[in-house]
Amino acid sequence: MLKKIAVFEENDFNEKQFKRLIVHESPYFKVINFNFKAGQELPIHSHDIEGQLSITILSGTGEFLGKDNARIPATPGDVLISDISEPHGIHAETDLRVLVTIAPPI
Amino acid sequence: MLKKIAVFEENDFNEKQFKRLIVHESPYFKVINFNFKAGQELPIHSHDIEGQLSITILSGTGEFLGKDNARIPATPGDVLISDISEPHGIHAETDLRVLVTIAPPI
Repeated sequence: MLKKIAVFEENDFNEKQFKRLIVHESPYFKVINFNFKAGQELPIHSHDIEGQLSITILSGTGEFLGKDNARIPATPGDVLISDISEPHGIHAETDLRVLVTIAPPI
Repeated sequence: MLKKIAVFEENDFNEKQFKRLIVHESPYFKVINFNFKAGQELPIHSHDIEGQLSITILSGTGEFLGKDNARIPATPGDVLISDISEPHGIHAETDLRVLVTIAPPI
């Protein structure tokens, strides 16, 4: 079965905190959409487990966050790859929609 | 290490055939960007192996292709989930950029 999720229609924004939509979860990967209002962020974090994740910028601009205060510009079409065990985060400069894929799923 | 790939800068279009950029490959997943000029397509296909894939529309519009001539509208922010063994494809109506993630990688 093909399954389509229209992320721009199915998730919106919240003034208080970023909004999270589970797009898909299976034994193979987990896909999550996060929407951030300008100024909101997913603080830098990591998990001490095997695997990698991607963060794809769907719309808006911001910064990927890394250890030692690294701040990497994030614009549409940018894809960040990180080990799950590597500190990572994201900060929104404008309203920002991202898609996170985690494999294997956690 | 964080690795950023600016897909909109690092891959372009080709009048003759879609253009493919390997964004990332690891034991966990494979991430590929395909750019299609209007009218180009990745014909319907499948592989008889375990795993799933996602197709995320980064820009442009088109149709996801499925078995029995299924055609599902594809616009930015849409994510299609498919088993690798399920027939799937994509057709571009306008110039179209997509990101495909395959787990486990093939």
